[in-house]
Amino acid sequence: MTDDLNLKDSCKIEAATINDYRRKLPQIADTIIASCEDETCYTHIDYEPIPSKASVIDIIERFRQILFPGYFNRERIDPVNIRYALGQATAELFDKLGEQISHAIRHDCFRYNQPCSECEENGHLTALEILNAVPALRKILATDVSATYEGDPAAKSHDEIIFSYPGILAITIYRVAHLLHNLGIPLLPRIMTEYAHGITGIDIHPGADIGERFVIDHGTGVVIGETTVIGRNVRIYQGVTLGALSLPADAGERLRNQKRHPTIEDDVIIYSGATILGGDTIIGTRSIIGGNVWLTRSVAPDTSVILESPKLVYK
Amino acid sequence: MTDDLNLKDSCKIEAATINDYRRKLPQIADTIIASCEDETCYTHIDYEPIPSKASVIDIIERFRQILFPGYFNRERIDPVNIRYALGQATAELFDKLGEQISHAIRHDCFRYNQPCSECEENGHLTALEILNAVPALRKILATDVSATYEGDPAAKSHDEIIFSYPGILAITIYRVAHLLHNLGIPLLPRIMTEYAHGITGIDIHPGADIGERFVIDHGTGVVIGETTVIGRNVRIYQGVTLGALSLPADAGERLRNQKRHPTIEDDVIIYSGATILGGDTIIGTRSIIGGNVWLTRSVAPDTSVILESPKLVYK
Amino acid sequence: MTDDLNLKDSCKIEAATINDYRRKLPQIADTIIASCEDETCYTHIDYEPIPSKASVIDIIERFRQILFPGYFNRERIDPVNIRYALGQATAELFDKLGEQISHAIRHDCFRYNQPCSECEENGHLTALEILNAVPALRKILATDVSATYEGDPAAKSHDEIIFSYPGILAITIYRVAHLLHNLGIPLLPRIMTEYAHGITGIDIHPGADIGERFVIDHGTGVVIGETTVIGRNVRIYQGVTLGALSLPADAGERLRNQKRHPTIEDDVIIYSGATILGGDTIIGTRSIIGGNVWLTRSVAPDTSVILESPKLVYK
Amino acid sequence: MTDDLNLKDSCKIEAATINDYRRKLPQIADTIIASCEDETCYTHIDYEPIPSKASVIDIIERFRQILFPGYFNRERIDPVNIRYALGQATAELFDKLGEQISHAIRHDCFRYNQPCSECEENGHLTALEILNAVPALRKILATDVSATYEGDPAAKSHDEIIFSYPGILAITIYRVAHLLHNLGIPLLPRIMTEYAHGITGIDIHPGADIGERFVIDHGTGVVIGETTVIGRNVRIYQGVTLGALSLPADAGERLRNQKRHPTIEDDVIIYSGATILGGDTIIGTRSIIGGNVWLTRSVAPDTSVILESPKLVYK
Amino acid sequence: MTDDLNLKDSCKIEAATINDYRRKLPQIADTIIASCEDETCYTHIDYEPIPSKASVIDIIERFRQILFPGYFNRERIDPVNIRYALGQATAELFDKLGEQISHAIRHDCFRYNQPCSECEENGHLTALEILNAVPALRKILATDVSATYEGDPAAKSHDEIIFSYPGILAITIYRVAHLLHNLGIPLLPRIMTEYAHGITGIDIHPGADIGERFVIDHGTGVVIGETTVIGRNVRIYQGVTLGALSLPADAGERLRNQKRHPTIEDDVIIYSGATILGGDTIIGTRSIIGGNVWLTRSVAPDTSVILESPKLVYK
Amino acid sequence: MTDDLNLKDSCKIEAATINDYRRKLPQIADTIIASCEDETCYTHIDYEPIPSKASVIDIIERFRQILFPGYFNRERIDPVNIRYALGQATAELFDKLGEQISHAIRHDCFRYNQPCSECEENGHLTALEILNAVPALRKILATDVSATYEGDPAAKSHDEIIFSYPGILAITIYRVAHLLHNLGIPLLPRIMTEYAHGITGIDIHPGADIGERFVIDHGTGVVIGETTVIGRNVRIYQGVTLGALSLPADAGERLRNQKRHPTIEDDVIIYSGATILGGDTIIGTRSIIGGNVWLTRSVAPDTSVILESPKLVYK
Repeated sequence: MTDDLNLKDSCKIEAATINDYRRKLPQIADTIIASCEDETCYTHIDYEPIPSKASVIDIIERFRQILFPGYFNRERIDPVNIRYALGQATAELFDKLGEQISHAIRHDCFRYNQPCSECEENGHLTALEILNAVPALRKILATDVSATYEGDPAAKSHDEIIFSYPGILAITIYRVAHLLHNLGIPLLPRIMTEYAHGITGIDIHPGADIGERFVIDHGTGVVIGETTVIGRNVRIYQGVTLGALSLPADAGERLRNQKRHPTIEDDVIIYSGATILGGDTIIGTRSIIGGNVWLTRSVAPDTSVILESPKLVYK
Repeated sequence: MTDDLNLKDSCKIEAATINDYRRKLPQIADTIIASCEDETCYTHIDYEPIPSKASVIDIIERFRQILFPGYFNRERIDPVNIRYALGQATAELFDKLGEQISHAIRHDCFRYNQPCSECEENGHLTALEILNAVPALRKILATDVSATYEGDPAAKSHDEIIFSYPGILAITIYRVAHLLHNLGIPLLPRIMTEYAHGITGIDIHPGADIGERFVIDHGTGVVIGETTVIGRNVRIYQGVTLGALSLPADAGERLRNQKRHPTIEDDVIIYSGATILGGDTIIGTRSIIGGNVWLTRSVAPDTSVILESPKLVYK
Repeated sequence: MTDDLNLKDSCKIEAATINDYRRKLPQIADTIIASCEDETCYTHIDYEPIPSKASVIDIIERFRQILFPGYFNRERIDPVNIRYALGQATAELFDKLGEQISHAIRHDCFRYNQPCSECEENGHLTALEILNAVPALRKILATDVSATYEGDPAAKSHDEIIFSYPGILAITIYRVAHLLHNLGIPLLPRIMTEYAHGITGIDIHPGADIGERFVIDHGTGVVIGETTVIGRNVRIYQGVTLGALSLPADAGERLRNQKRHPTIEDDVIIYSGATILGGDTIIGTRSIIGGNVWLTRSVAPDTSVILESPKLVYK
Repeated sequence: MTDDLNLKDSCKIEAATINDYRRKLPQIADTIIASCEDETCYTHIDYEPIPSKASVIDIIERFRQILFPGYFNRERIDPVNIRYALGQATAELFDKLGEQISHAIRHDCFRYNQPCSECEENGHLTALEILNAVPALRKILATDVSATYEGDPAAKSHDEIIFSYPGILAITIYRVAHLLHNLGIPLLPRIMTEYAHGITGIDIHPGADIGERFVIDHGTGVVIGETTVIGRNVRIYQGVTLGALSLPADAGERLRNQKRHPTIEDDVIIYSGATILGGDTIIGTRSIIGGNVWLTRSVAPDTSVILESPKLVYK
Repeated sequence: MTDDLNLKDSCKIEAATINDYRRKLPQIADTIIASCEDETCYTHIDYEPIPSKASVIDIIERFRQILFPGYFNRERIDPVNIRYALGQATAELFDKLGEQISHAIRHDCFRYNQPCSECEENGHLTALEILNAVPALRKILATDVSATYEGDPAAKSHDEIIFSYPGILAITIYRVAHLLHNLGIPLLPRIMTEYAHGITGIDIHPGADIGERFVIDHGTGVVIGETTVIGRNVRIYQGVTLGALSLPADAGERLRNQKRHPTIEDDVIIYSGATILGGDTIIGTRSIIGGNVWLTRSVAPDTSVILESPKLVYK
Repeated sequence: MTDDLNLKDSCKIEAATINDYRRKLPQIADTIIASCEDETCYTHIDYEPIPSKASVIDIIERFRQILFPGYFNRERIDPVNIRYALGQATAELFDKLGEQISHAIRHDCFRYNQPCSECEENGHLTALEILNAVPALRKILATDVSATYEGDPAAKSHDEIIFSYPGILAITIYRVAHLLHNLGIPLLPRIMTEYAHGITGIDIHPGADIGERFVIDHGTGVVIGETTVIGRNVRIYQGVTLGALSLPADAGERLRNQKRHPTIEDDVIIYSGATILGGDTIIGTRSIIGGNVWLTRSVAPDTSVILESPKLVYK
């Protein structure tokens, strides 16, 4: 199946010194370079800079320092330096965010052969809009933290939640990425949420629309799809999927930009391992979805849905 | 729902140069700083240093270097330098651990307005106690490694397990964090286990009580709650939840410090995706819990519990 | 249970200054060092260098820069420097890969008391073989990217997939590790795939055999065991396990190197949370396995297997 | 003479492997450690931290960033971030300077067995005083830069002088060190001026007293002794020594704190290689001292002193 | 004289805690920032980036790696990677050099209010010209190395000279800076030669014109002025000054761009401490200038000039 | 003279974009690479590693940490960790020193086409010998520090001398380099002393032979030649040269390994700017050489030599 990659037999080099091997490198490098010109090789060989994943992660870390001042800064923040530290952080964030947004816009223009005379300016204008939203972001994140604390007996303090809860980290990054997504910026929002996915196991697409007081407990394995809509005061547990119904092989083209993921109304709780699928599926307000439930149709408000006691065999 | 964050229309800035945008930053920064004084913004603005997540991670890495000498050190460890390397590592760990524990204690005193005259001293005393426990920690971790090797046909060597198994990494960090938790240190234990959660997908609360020869295979999605008790020689697979029964919205206050998670006795195996909930649920010794089983009541010793053959529809 | 680790009572040190605590460190260090000589402590105390996890991760990052030129490089890659950048990257990768392979081989020889006169040379010969496979690797990875794009409505571009999709990251690392595994190199392949596991939650054993156009969507919680065989054009979702049947406690020795994991033929789709177990289990070509299905027997080609509508209780 | 250091014959080790050599290291290390207890070995083995040379250099670099905003900062300084950047720099400098001054004071107390209850507080009070002097420091340094530009045809701009002239660098560091010296801080002032000496070849003792508009051209080999007094508008060239008369072997004790170096009044020029010695030597205002002149007595105001045309032999 | 900087008395702060001191910082920072608006403070507060000293030093190090391949590279250079390493180094140097030259040109335009529409393009064009000159630079530097080796009994090999001789380092940097100077680039050439001055004590103005086979032995204290002309095969020792005659206080404006420094013809040797001054002074070919000689007039070819045996007093 | 480097006219590139310039780089790189094959280009293109200047500097810094424990370490050294810190430092120094010595020896064998079967072993054997000499080195350096303190009224403490005096830094590095020189190691000793030369302006050839209680005050411009012999208790000032008589152009070959530099007997003082030349010149014990004296013949013991009062012209 993958025979072409099994090299054991094709390589019958006699015992030789390492430098003899090394001398073969230019020829190998030539082959590697030549294989880039093939259409089967994805490359980014261009005079224009592309977005940098490392820079995007750096931007996220700066956002966290501004959104929760004092928790994630290297230097202590106190009443003396708060003004300087946040001011400087804001100015640096503007520069770096503006630069990466510009790269992302310009890259898109380049891919689609569009003129790009205002890419750089638009990048910085967008950065400005994002910074304008920081107070509102802080406010909604504070509701997420409060709701998490109120519902979790294992949480010792708000500090513990902000410092260490993966749910809050994933939601913070999602809320920033969602702003960028709404402003039509390509690439960056998804790089951000996949960074969150990598370190929390929580996969929220930046296109999802999520209200305040949102809680994700434990979180590993949570999937929230692109067109999901979630109201306020919703709580979900590890392994919950808010996804699309089964997709045809060519779904990519046919279903792009259609509503494929469910709507969760206010005050709903969804326990671990539950799967809710489909763009027409609506979970009514105040409903409770039990663990491992698999739902592809709507549920009226104020309903509890649980699996019928699963039949267990005891031996 | 999240309209307040949709900035597209509110921002009608005419075409301008980037520097024009930049000149708006001081005003934005002022708004950001002002919004910190609001009660809806969580901040840590204080003259006293707080625990540092980066330092806690550094402490964990040093523990691993001491607990498994030679595997995770940058420098080669050999019979010549073992004494110096471990001695130096111990002294450095004492300083760094003592410092972070002191910060954590002082921060707690500050939050609760308690006197803190001995915070620094207590921090270092606690660090000393932890270091005293290193030989015992090593001993119990060696049982975890052995048990993992004995039960896993895919493991090629003990080295492979120590180097790369996420289960061993998560258990190592849990065992260190559990020591700190038992000594009443705030914040640090949870930062440690959430760090493990982030890189292994295994979420063990530092308050859980777990015996020797503990094995977690694959591990992603495992959740072990705060008041769980696990005996010796227990083996669990990916996606296993040892959790609490469904919680009321105000569970945070009402259930804090009550036993909410199950007890697993010696020699139990729990297969992937199983969910065991409730503080009164006891899985008796030598029992086997099958994959995806959902349990909220106790199981007698020497019992196998499996899902009744799930009804599958073939089309 | 873990009483020996509860230090609260055993440590009755009187009030003292930090430096008094510090003076106890040499004695503690001596105890820590002495406990290394015990058989219950795993150490790597040796004059020979062992593989370094940090170096292996560095090697993976270099591979990604060569396999997808321009996406993950720090410097921009353009038609002017592509030749130099890839040439230099190839030469550096040869050195670093050769070194780590040599360490891994030598470490194995040392563990099993075998002569090791050609360890270093073999390490570099193997590195050469791996580099020779880069064009083939690129080709098969390009099929994985295409298949991902074609099936995912949420994917905006190939760039977004390469930059941020955890499935592609895990498959890339798996394909490199699989080459090393096939050439019989110890330790490194598993360190590589566990690194991928850590940042994607996708656990593919390097021994698995996987065909082209392989897609993993979302991915967290996916487990693909050592002896799994997967055909071409297979698509799997988060939480899918391709595993072994339940294992006896001494499975490690008894089942090593036996086929214990299933075979998935071409064009199969496996939805989220499905579990397929056993070395004799074959999923026939073009079959579709529904979400949460638990299978331990074979399925004929062109079959859809879904859970009978789970009985839900609405209250 | 240095026979004890010639090791060739004393070391008759037979051919052996490197690891055999390595095994001798513990014994050598023991000897090295034991030789520390000897009175012939200078050590700083103490529980209290000592000043750190690296930190002092870091402090100097921060001073330069504050004294000449925009020239030596990593980030661009513009009207938008000047306030944040300088504010933050000031707060950080306060912390670091206060810490190092505290270490220096405490170290001195320790050396002389004095009580040190207020060392830390005094350190930070002194740091505050130094920061209060920054505007005055800037003002006097601006006169030094102007005077340099006015007298040097090779200077293309004030920028070139600030960026690259070693004279300005040495004078900047001297002026900071002199403040610390005047406030009685041990160790730090000399570490600062010797850092300047190392990178400019200009050796100004922090105790010297130097007026505004001071110019050092080229500068390598300039020596300005501890009790030198220099007026305003003085210009000196490379290789100029303002030193003490020849000293007895026990000068250290006998002459400490006496005026041993000359006084240079306003508007004096001293050309390259000139040597002026002695605490009673006064160079009167507006005098010019020619190249290589060697002076041990005073010179009246408005005098030119040059070497009688040196007799040269032409062959 | 510098009373305004003596703070001892002016600062009568009562005993207070460190945090009380800290709270005074905002006021101090405000004063520091306000004092920037004064004309007595040199600042670079601008939206345009200025040349960065660190970048210029980085550029020099890259030049050395290209001019003497293999001596100063971090990675080994061998026949396999020479092509990639030098190619990549050339491309990187082009980018960094072009950027810094652009900053320098733009800064100059800004200082003199000139239009700057082609600053960036001109910067990169100049960088290209400089790179074109690398083979010629290498050739002339090779003559410098040869001449150094031939005349120095203490030199053990050409390698030792290239690795460690400050004369060769200073000449290398001068030759690069001279190219930039000839192309009219501001700021950068002087930053380069003052960097050399700092680490070698050899101060060669980038405007000097120096022929091949140039040797500086030991070198500390050597000064070579802006309008000096030096022929081929000239050798000078430590402490030699090739300078201007004494300058009036307003020399800066009056003498800028006039020839003020001597001309040294081919095959001349100048021993340590000699001083040769004046724009009309010509040292004829094959002449030898003895140690400490002070010359302000021309010397015919084939002349030896030595100090008349200095009269020494023996006591 | 240097016309070939003046590029202004030869480069008539029309206005073009930066990327057009960039496209010319491959051709330039080819020319640069081709010019390496010329004999006029010094390169180190070889499969064998060469000594690394950065590593040698690292070695020196480690030596200083071992020779003066606690002064130059990053971590505080106290009675608790002194044993570990010095032991670890000794082991690391052995590895790094052995490696660099091996590279230096092997490089020499390669240059002179000699067999090199024991280069690596000899390198480590030599490292061992050097480490054996550390206690003796410490002892002699302690005499240098004491003598410096006794003679310098400006020295406030031994600490100040060890921390900041360039004379002690240069002598420390010289004494280490001299050991390597005596053992016949190529390249490294000179790289070490030229490093000291760079940061202190004091140029001591590693071949010089210097007794205990050696003092260099200020130091900039001091030159001590390869075959100089200096007794005990000698003190010299800035700008002193102990050199060779004037050398013929082909001195390199003719005079290598002959005694060309003076002998200074015990208890001599040499004031600033004095020059003493010639291999037969002996300065007798207890003599004093005045400032700027130029000596090419021997001086009997107990003699003071000063310049006859230089005739000064007062105008």
